[in-house]
Amino acid sequence: MESRTSLESRTIITDLVLPSETNPIGNMFGGELLARMDRAAGIAARRHSRRVVVTASVNHVAFNKMIPLGSVVTVEAKVSRAFKSSMEVFMDVWIEDRESGMRSKANEAIYTFVAVDEMGSPVPIPPLKPESDLEKERYEAALRRRQLSLVLAKKMDPKDATELKALFQ
Amino acid sequence: MESRTSLESRTIITDLVLPSETNPIGNMFGGELLARMDRAAGIAARRHSRRVVVTASVNHVAFNKMIPLGSVVTVEAKVSRAFKSSMEVFMDVWIEDRESGMRSKANEAIYTFVAVDEMGSPVPIPPLKPESDLEKERYEAALRRRQLSLVLAKKMDPKDATELKALFQ
Amino acid sequence: MESRTSLESRTIITDLVLPSETNPIGNMFGGELLARMDRAAGIAARRHSRRVVVTASVNHVAFNKMIPLGSVVTVEAKVSRAFKSSMEVFMDVWIEDRESGMRSKANEAIYTFVAVDEMGSPVPIPPLKPESDLEKERYEAALRRRQLSLVLAKKMDPKDATELKALFQ
Amino acid sequence: MESRTSLESRTIITDLVLPSETNPIGNMFGGELLARMDRAAGIAARRHSRRVVVTASVNHVAFNKMIPLGSVVTVEAKVSRAFKSSMEVFMDVWIEDRESGMRSKANEAIYTFVAVDEMGSPVPIPPLKPESDLEKERYEAALRRRQLSLVLAKKMDPKDATELKALFQ
Amino acid sequence: MESRTSLESRTIITDLVLPSETNPIGNMFGGELLARMDRAAGIAARRHSRRVVVTASVNHVAFNKMIPLGSVVTVEAKVSRAFKSSMEVFMDVWIEDRESGMRSKANEAIYTFVAVDEMGSPVPIPPLKPESDLEKERYEAALRRRQLSLVLAKKMDPKDATELKALFQ
Amino acid sequence: MESRTSLESRTIITDLVLPSETNPIGNMFGGELLARMDRAAGIAARRHSRRVVVTASVNHVAFNKMIPLGSVVTVEAKVSRAFKSSMEVFMDVWIEDRESGMRSKANEAIYTFVAVDEMGSPVPIPPLKPESDLEKERYEAALRRRQLSLVLAKKMDPKDATELKALFQ
Repeated sequence: MESRTSLESRTIITDLVLPSETNPIGNMFGGELLARMDRAAGIAARRHSRRVVVTASVNHVAFNKMIPLGSVVTVEAKVSRAFKSSMEVFMDVWIEDRESGMRSKANEAIYTFVAVDEMGSPVPIPPLKPESDLEKERYEAALRRRQLSLVLAKKMDPKDATELKALFQ
Repeated sequence: MESRTSLESRTIITDLVLPSETNPIGNMFGGELLARMDRAAGIAARRHSRRVVVTASVNHVAFNKMIPLGSVVTVEAKVSRAFKSSMEVFMDVWIEDRESGMRSKANEAIYTFVAVDEMGSPVPIPPLKPESDLEKERYEAALRRRQLSLVLAKKMDPKDATELKALFQ
Repeated sequence: MESRTSLESRTIITDLVLPSETNPIGNMFGGELLARMDRAAGIAARRHSRRVVVTASVNHVAFNKMIPLGSVVTVEAKVSRAFKSSMEVFMDVWIEDRESGMRSKANEAIYTFVAVDEMGSPVPIPPLKPESDLEKERYEAALRRRQLSLVLAKKMDPKDATELKALFQ
Repeated sequence: MESRTSLESRTIITDLVLPSETNPIGNMFGGELLARMDRAAGIAARRHSRRVVVTASVNHVAFNKMIPLGSVVTVEAKVSRAFKSSMEVFMDVWIEDRESGMRSKANEAIYTFVAVDEMGSPVPIPPLKPESDLEKERYEAALRRRQLSLVLAKKMDPKDATELKALFQ
Repeated sequence: MESRTSLESRTIITDLVLPSETNPIGNMFGGELLARMDRAAGIAARRHSRRVVVTASVNHVAFNKMIPLGSVVTVEAKVSRAFKSSMEVFMDVWIEDRESGMRSKANEAIYTFVAVDEMGSPVPIPPLKPESDLEKERYEAALRRRQLSLVLAKKMDPKDATELKALFQ
Repeated sequence: MESRTSLESRTIITDLVLPSETNPIGNMFGGELLARMDRAAGIAARRHSRRVVVTASVNHVAFNKMIPLGSVVTVEAKVSRAFKSSMEVFMDVWIEDRESGMRSKANEAIYTFVAVDEMGSPVPIPPLKPESDLEKERYEAALRRRQLSLVLAKKMDPKDATELKALFQ
């Protein structure tokens, strides 16, 4: 299969934060953002694979910045690496201030999806060809994250996670 | 502050999987489950701290099992360890088969919440006192997870994450 | 069929009251609570019968206590008596105060469900065996309620509703 | 205060039954209908009283007819009697067949609402003046239902519920 | 096919404006009203044609009046003219003031629907017979609107839109 | 005020069509698309004006293409012309085929928004400076559409709508 670029899977969801999506101090629920990111990432993975896709895992996500009621939130998702039938999708989340028009980064997150057939069995997908420097950097890091994921799922011995181990030495 | 038990924060959300929550092959969207878990974990954290709480992070979550349309999904959340103002909440997710009545484990997930005042600043919370063996095991592991979280957030040098490093040696 | 206990059908839905679910003075809409209770009761009835179930009737429900925005509401549903193919489900609804952690009873409600096959025809279900004193009391009262229900539906002559009549003499 | 007629409070909600509102055999959830009826009845009560209103109770409701996915459901609500600050609202629910255009009665239901001020305290409301024969009949029966309600809430001794008792003798 | 009257397709949706449906200054989103009107108009078109119907177009809609949070909004939809397989549906939207009980007109809108078979192909529908003066006026104007619509869709030469041209001369 | 470009207000909402958003033959409700477009256009108008914005009107919208369940729908909104305090927002809507990855144009639509202060009064906004040929063409046409809008609202005599009249001569 011919490789595809990150740009081809790029998916943007821009939307307001509504009252039903906020906690008692007026900030967006973390779970609401996790669900929006799953929708954006799922569409990106579908665009890359042209298959039905299912969420396989969500990497560690930190919510460093509160997102107030009425904010405009932009989720931008791009496939960052493709394996045999799974894809890593990298997301950048921005919020913007209405008056100044300034955008600021609110979050990053990484979800993994698997392309499946109608019975839910994994199917092969095209490779991802990174282009920009940032895309290349994320492409490389994707391998370490995959090792961490396999270690945590007890499908890989920590001692064999060569690249990951290097981090701690 | 007096310590509280895991049992005191135990929170259960049982609900059906509806058509709007499923993908084209009839299984629950991962993002939908992430949002339900955030609601359950947030209530557990609020019960432990008796404060407004906000999602601080979500640990790596793997979706190993598809959850079909019409399933009854049970999310059970309990605070597994309390730090100064943050709490780790551990969740077990089950689905059950209507005809046999059999329950099976569909997922585990770990979210971290911070207790805040009305301005969003962290406030101190009571310690958690684990009781059962499983609670004690999760209590111990929470420290390693906290180190991993600090390392990933670049707030701790991997070389100082003593317990975590041990995993790779 | 072997009998089942109330505990086997016990179903808990815990959730927050969100802004879209409240009236102009900031309290939960009655209709919203009726819908949540229907979901909890329906799952309890399905757990008892292991069948598709449909709501057959709702007993008189009184809303004695306002439930303010942001409350944590817990609905606990248990089958209280099984007839040939219908089940009475008894629900207790609590709300809790965030700061004191105190729970208070907000409502009780009784729904009746019928177990059906794929064509919607009633099918036989296992009997319910009450265990605790409260379960036994509710089991007994279920018969009087059934008579009232049949009288109101004009399927039973009030003069034949022996137990019910006793109430007024 | 001048009396108002049932017609002045008449409220109609017509809507489709969507996939998210149906059970596994494709019929509308009872709880969904209860919530729609609460919205219609609440608006009728508000139109009669010109006040904020809160649901006080729901009479026994029987679901005799399944309402399939895609049905057009019409809920018509009218205040049937006003007491000091509470109102009984009577609802008729119809569904219609698309091809023949035939309407059939699917349900009747009776909700009670209380008019309140901003603090949630009951306020006096205008009396209801029934006009048609059906309105007069429902107006009379409202008194018996109120007695039953008070008896069930243990606010009236069954022996004093004169009109209600008559039913059983 | 026998003609039908506007009254036969008359459809009313009355509902509150909830917090999730309002913008930062507390007024109903225009898009929310457009969606409610589509539901009302779609049911009216279905009642006239007794067929599955799909939205074909929306005429120019002006939002002249803000609709505040908590308003009771009534959408009344009636088929105003039927062509071969398409129908024009005219809607009047009112809001009412709780305290005075006064209704005021908030909007008018005109949607066009097409009746289709299961494959989505247009099917013939009965003619509409206007009765009141207002119905007759709207029936006449429907022809000019249809010409405008065809002109805008480039399916009719502006020079041939005889009635429409008259407006500008 | 300094002018802004169309690019600065560009807003993209990409999302799936879910079961609750489709009619009986499995296509997206027109009203659902109208609401999504209102959200995208409202954010674009807010980005241009950096103010609270309210929907003022919706131009004639034709639904020429059915949008099936499960489609990925992309709405792209850009301010096409700014007047004193109102803005015209032009939207392009695409759907894409999962297997071939082909995008096709499903709709175009034009909404007008007004920038307001906290009391809902119109406030002045920056001019729009079109850049590409398509942007210039839409900028020019916006004036004719504004005239049509004023004529339809009876705020301009059709005889004075110079540019609009030209269309019919």
